[in-house]
Order: sequence, then structure tokens, then C-alpha cells
Amino acid sequence: MSAVSPVLNRLDANLDQSLDRLFELMRIRSISTDPAFADECRKAAEWLVADLKTIGFDASLRDTPGHPMVVAHHAGPSETAPHVLFYGHYDVQPVDPIELWVDDPFDPKIKDIGEGRRVITGRGSSDDKGQLMLFVEACRAWKAVHGTLPCRVTILFEGEEESGSPSLKPFLAANAAELKADFAMVCDTGMWDGETPAISTGLRGLVGVELTVKAADRDLHSGQYGGAAANPIRILARILSDIHDENGRVTIPGFYDGVEETPSQILKSWDSLGMTSEKFLGEIGLSVPAGEKGRSVLELVWARPTAEFNGITGGYTGKGFKTVIAAEASAKISFRLVHKQDPDKIRDAFHAFVDARIPADCSVDFHPHGGSPAIQLSYDSPFLTKAKSALSDEWPKPAVMIAMGGSIPVVGDFQTYLGMESLLVGFGLSDDRIHSPNEKYELASFHKGQRSWARILDALTK
Amino acid sequence: MSAVSPVLNRLDANLDQSLDRLFELMRIRSISTDPAFADECRKAAEWLVADLKTIGFDASLRDTPGHPMVVAHHAGPSETAPHVLFYGHYDVQPVDPIELWVDDPFDPKIKDIGEGRRVITGRGSSDDKGQLMLFVEACRAWKAVHGTLPCRVTILFEGEEESGSPSLKPFLAANAAELKADFAMVCDTGMWDGETPAISTGLRGLVGVELTVKAADRDLHSGQYGGAAANPIRILARILSDIHDENGRVTIPGFYDGVEETPSQILKSWDSLGMTSEKFLGEIGLSVPAGEKGRSVLELVWARPTAEFNGITGGYTGKGFKTVIAAEASAKISFRLVHKQDPDKIRDAFHAFVDARIPADCSVDFHPHGGSPAIQLSYDSPFLTKAKSALSDEWPKPAVMIAMGGSIPVVGDFQTYLGMESLLVGFGLSDDRIHSPNEKYELASFHKGQRSWARILDALTK
Repeated sequence: MSAVSPVLNRLDANLDQSLDRLFELMRIRSISTDPAFADECRKAAEWLVADLKTIGFDASLRDTPGHPMVVAHHAGPSETAPHVLFYGHYDVQPVDPIELWVDDPFDPKIKDIGEGRRVITGRGSSDDKGQLMLFVEACRAWKAVHGTLPCRVTILFEGEEESGSPSLKPFLAANAAELKADFAMVCDTGMWDGETPAISTGLRGLVGVELTVKAADRDLHSGQYGGAAANPIRILARILSDIHDENGRVTIPGFYDGVEETPSQILKSWDSLGMTSEKFLGEIGLSVPAGEKGRSVLELVWARPTAEFNGITGGYTGKGFKTVIAAEASAKISFRLVHKQDPDKIRDAFHAFVDARIPADCSVDFHPHGGSPAIQLSYDSPFLTKAKSALSDEWPKPAVMIAMGGSIPVVGDFQTYLGMESLLVGFGLSDDRIHSPNEKYELASFHKGQRSWARILDALTK
Repeated sequence: MSAVSPVLNRLDANLDQSLDRLFELMRIRSISTDPAFADECRKAAEWLVADLKTIGFDASLRDTPGHPMVVAHHAGPSETAPHVLFYGHYDVQPVDPIELWVDDPFDPKIKDIGEGRRVITGRGSSDDKGQLMLFVEACRAWKAVHGTLPCRVTILFEGEEESGSPSLKPFLAANAAELKADFAMVCDTGMWDGETPAISTGLRGLVGVELTVKAADRDLHSGQYGGAAANPIRILARILSDIHDENGRVTIPGFYDGVEETPSQILKSWDSLGMTSEKFLGEIGLSVPAGEKGRSVLELVWARPTAEFNGITGGYTGKGFKTVIAAEASAKISFRLVHKQDPDKIRDAFHAFVDARIPADCSVDFHPHGGSPAIQLSYDSPFLTKAKSALSDEWPKPAVMIAMGGSIPVVGDFQTYLGMESLLVGFGLSDDRIHSPNEKYELASFHKGQRSWARILDALTK
């Protein structure tokens, strides 16, 4: 019998207990972007430290200027065993608009949604508490069965992933010797579909920026001043409208510098996955691709840059009506980057683009929200090949290589500060509604994901 | 000695008591647009009924489907005395952003602001509680001195002026016989400057509309879907941006139907008032006229139509950043109308303009917020001539005839339902910050405004 078989059996037998643990963690409201929840973030970190200690990890909470890191080490069977760094994040997105949640986002439940599917509901179920606990449970079972782990394992859980990870780079730089491993394993991505596991080898980068257009020195009555005074909402709308042309391309000068055309071989492999725009958009109630014309939806979200408007506010937004011309209006904008686009150059180009559209008697303030370049990982590293095989053993269909529309800046930071490549394996599904009301995680992902990590750890020793 | 002299003396002697009464009324938070303040609106109406009874008015509160009306009658000296209907509104604007108020908006104070100016601070001080109490105080003094009033007086105070007056038209229609008078006096306008009283003879109309653009059936992660899925903020920004051309003209087809060029004689009289764009905009921290090019600021705000964006919201607007593509985004827009522009046609044209810009897989909802045509009053009615003379007696400089950028729909409703013209006299100043934080009313306006109404009542009997 292989070493992994009794571990898999134990994971099967202890699924209910692993759910109890996940639910405990999910009940902690660790929303990192809102300072009101700082204590809850700390509580989540403390919970993880305590849990990892029960498995025999040398675990500790590490303070940062923001929310704390969790670092844990296990020596494994020998000093020559493979050494992996596992990364996840315990912070979650805000829950507004709260009125759209069917269930309390912080009171997780198991729900039967038909067709044999059962899901875990609640904020963080998929992104990323459910995913990080997969690996913890795999380690717990392996340790219980074999008395140790098959590899040397370092764990790093951060609490600022959903708010731009301001403390991550300095922390990696200051603790590089302690955190360095053979490679990193990052569990914050998705499967191709419910039967097909996936390894992600491309990730879009991100530049976030908030801009506030300021006009008059006070709110004005639109009857007294309308038609004469600058309206910051009008100025802001014009700026946002100018960012895309009629073909969905971004018009900011220099924006496409560093963007490469994806090789036709890769595009063909993506086409073979059978995804259509009807299917991709149909799941979210849409049908018309809104990006650059003439490209498949997978290319649009995996290999093309974007400008997206994530929030806008100005003037009177309450019930009823107020005939006001606001003193200011603001928007939150993010750019997804690909290939060799330079975050700093994109940010500078955007600022210049905006500045050119501000009337002489108005002004604009910029507030940056993170920036990271896109990542392209190798397709054929030894650990990737082993992981692909292990995943294919666990799931009904073989693992596929995909790209990701989202950014996971830590992957670039691991390259920069620790000289490590990453293996991106995750078990989210595209309908998990991460960042939205009614986030869920498939119970099958939670169960077979634990088993997958046990298989991957096993495969790495061979 | 004339009949008015002892009344003026009594108003001078009782200024402090009249301030106490105004402050009592201002402490009532009668924000009509927010249902949470419905009880406060009723309380303000009840306060006015009780106060008018102390002056000898036959006063009563009249329920409507919204906030109640206050109606009061005084028979005056004889059945043949002139009969006036005085109108004001006891409701006020919301106070957000509350953090920009220096003093509590509902705890009125007298403040010395230098250069000999003392002001009353607080929401409603100018718009319109301070203004409506001027006439009440003039009546109170006249009654105390002479035992009756010089005219037959009907008073109508409404509580929905700041939220589109939904109950006004039905109320006027149902009570036309009771409310009909020789003409109406509406005290909700401003002076030309602190020394120069004004009578307004033109008022812009208003069409308010709220639109909500709906895209995906849920909020989306901008990494997963950005570049493929429709973004309602982008669609909304494009719509708003398309509404004005590069010269500040509104591009909605048919928008300028019914707009007339103002006679050059009128434009010359406005030019002679000495207002420059530097002065007009300099007071609010601006310098560049934002409306149609080639027209004076007075023409822009008095005689040209506009499209103004009063509020916009969509996506994540809290602290920090959220990489979300919102399911919907909305804006509140108002159009100021002049001359013969038809509110219904403008609304229909705007809906069509928007509909043409909604992608096939998205939708838009419209929510109307009031509509009224512009008003042009006669320049030479007998009561206007008498009022102009009375005002010129009270103030350092003679009264001037002006127009108003704002709309006062009741003036049109008085024409339609009661067959009455209106006399628009008010004592607000352009820096009163009505509808904004830190609203104020000049103490001089409150004092000399009472005296002005006493003089006007006196003049009407001659």
C-alpha cells in the first residue's frame, strides 16, 4: 500500500471535523480593507497559529504594520526531503451589499443546491479560507497517520491579500532566509470545471487607483449654478468614457506597451477547452462580450489587459432627489496587466491622461491601491509535472493548464524576494461568487481538495 | 403717521422674540425626501398651525398622501380688501455630508462673520423656514398694532417642496375655491445683493430622473470577468459623457425645442447689473464657465436649459479597494428648462437617448423625480409695481427685476389650478449655501425682510 492511501482514508473519515474547523475560521470577520475589522483579522491569525500547533507545526504570529502574518514550519522526515512553502490568505472581502446575501456571510452552512451538489456558504468559503484549510487538513491527516510529514513544509498565511498586501514585500525581504524553500504552492485559484482540476501558469497583474475630481469649494444648488459651474461628476464621466474606444480598446497612450500577442498554439489549446462567450457570459446573465472585439472570452480574461471601473460616487446618492452640484466626485479604477506591461508606467500614463482632462479651475487627487506586473510561469517544471499527475489521479478528468484573469501578486513577490517559482493549484469554481454576495465553495472541492494536496505531497517525494 | 410705521417699530422691538420662534421651527428636522423624518415634517406643520392660531389665523393641518399642508385664513379689515395667498415651505434639504458642517445644522445660532454681518446658521435658515417666518412676523406685528391685517390673507405652507411636491397639484385642485386669491406671494427667492432687493419674473423648470443601469445578475470579480463582462459604471459614464458636446450644449435630440433667444433688451439689463463670470464663479472657488460657450453667466443660469448630474453611485465606494464589477450603477440627473420646453417631451427624449446606449444584454430602469415647465411672469402687473416701490423704500438700493436659475413649481401650479399670477420676493443671498453644508441666512435679511413684507401689505391697500 502506498503511503498516501491511509492518509486519504483518514481525510474521508474526518471530513465532518474538518468542516467544523473551517466554520470556526469563517465565523471570524477578517475583512482586511476596513480598519473596523482589524481585531477580527488578528483573531483569525491567532486561530490559525493555535490550529497549526496542534499538528506539530512550529507556528507563530508575526506582527506587521498592518495585519499579522502566520508563519509555521515542520521539519518533515529528513533534511534532504523536498521543501515547500505553502501560501494562503486568511483575510476576506467586504460583504456589502449585505442585503443581497441569502444567508449570514459569517455563519457558514452546508446547503444542498440540487444535482447532487452540496456547497459551503459564506464569505471566505472559497476565497481563501476554504482553500488554505485544504492543505492544513492534508498535513493534519498525514501527521496523524505517519507521525511526520512527507516533505519539509513552511506555511505562510497573510491577512492583507484583499487590500493590496502592503506588508508582504517588506516581510518577505526581512525573512527571506527563513521562508525560502524549493518552490511555493499557492492555493488561491480555480479548477477548469467541477470535474477538471487546473494548474495556472499565467496571472494578470494589477494597478489600482482612486481618483477624486474636485470642482467648487462647496456643494452647490443646481438651480443657482447649473449651466455655469463645473460639475465634477460630468468631468469624471468624461474621463471614464474616454478610457475605452468604440472597439473596447483602452485609449491611454502607451497602455499596450509590453503586451504580446498570445502564441497561436496556446490560443488553440484554450479554444479546445470548449468555452464559448455564450456559456461564459450566460452564467452571469450576460451575452455580449464587452472587451476588445475579435478575441475569445478566454483570451480576453487570461491574456489581454483591461481598465475596469470598480466603484464611483459623487453628489447625492440617498433616497429621493437633491438638486445639488457636488464639490467632488471619485472613482476606483483597476487595470489588469499582461506580459511585460509596467505597472509604474501604466500608472503614470493614466495620471497624465486624467490631468489633461481636468478643467483649469478644477483639480484631481490620486490615491494608489497596489500595483504588480503580470506573471508567466514555466509550463514544464518537475514539480508542475508531478502535481499535474497527482491531480489527474484524484479527479474524474485529467488536469489542464490554464491562465488566470485575476492577479496574485505574491507569486511575483516570491520570484523577486525568495527566488522561487510557484505552483498554482486551487479548487474554486467560476460560480463561487468570490467578492460578491452569497460566496460558496463546493463541498466536493473541500473534500477532494484535501485529498489532492495529500497526493501532491506524496508525488513530490517520488 | 402711516399705518405701517408703528408696525415697523414693533418688528424692530420684537426681533429677538421672532428669532426665538424661528429657532424653534429650525430645530425640527423636517427633511422631506427621507421617509425617516416623516414625523419631524408633521411636527413642523403642527408647530406652524399652533403659531398661526396665536396671531388669530383660522389655521389647520391638512393631511395629504405625503407630508401635511398648513392652511390658514385671516379675514382682514373687510370683504373688499385685497386678498393675497402667501406660500412657503417648511421642509428642508438633507444635511449630508454632515461632516462638513461647522455647527449642528439643527441647532441654529447667531454668528458674527465680520464686516458688520451677523447670520443665522443652520438647515432651513434661508430655504425656507427663515423666509416664510418673515411674512408670519409681519402679520403678527400688524395684528398686534392694528387689531387686524391690512388685507385678506390666506397662507399655504407645504412640506414637500424639496422632494418634488407630489401632493401639491391634487391639493390645489381639490381646494381651489378655498385657496383662490387675487394673487400669490411666494417667498423662496433671493436678493440681487445684500443691499438690493429683487423681484423674480422668470424661473427655470425642472425634470428630475434617476436611472439605474443593470448588467450581470451579480457583482463580479474584476479579475475573473474583467475584459469580457459588461461594466455598468462604464456604460453609465458613456451615457453621461454623451449628454454634452465639446461646447457645453446638450446633445439629446429635441432638447432645445421651445428654447427662445432672450431679447437683447433683457440681456442688456442683466449686463448692466455688473455681474462677471469671475465674480460669479470666484465666490465658489471656480473661474471657468462650464456651460454653453459665448453666453454670460447670468444668461446661463437664468435663461438657458441645462443637464446636471446630481448624484452617481455604483460598485464599491467604501474605504480601501475592491476589485469588483458591479451588477448595477445609477445616477440622478436633472434638467433645468426655460421658455416653452416641454417636461414630458424632454423626459421621453432622454429615455430614448439612454435606451440607444444600453448594450443588448443590459437593461436600464428609470425613476422620475418631478417635472415642471419654466415660468415667465409679467413685468408690469399692478401688484408687482406696488411691491417694487415698497421694497425700494426699505432697502439702500432700488429693487431690480431678475430671473431665477432654480425652479419653483408652485408658481406654475398656481397659474394652472388657481388662475393666479405670483409675486416672487425673497431675501436670500447667493452665498447662503442652501442645499449645502453650513446654510445661513443674513440677520439683516431676517429683520428687513419682515419690514419689507409689512411695507408690501401696506402698499397693496393703496
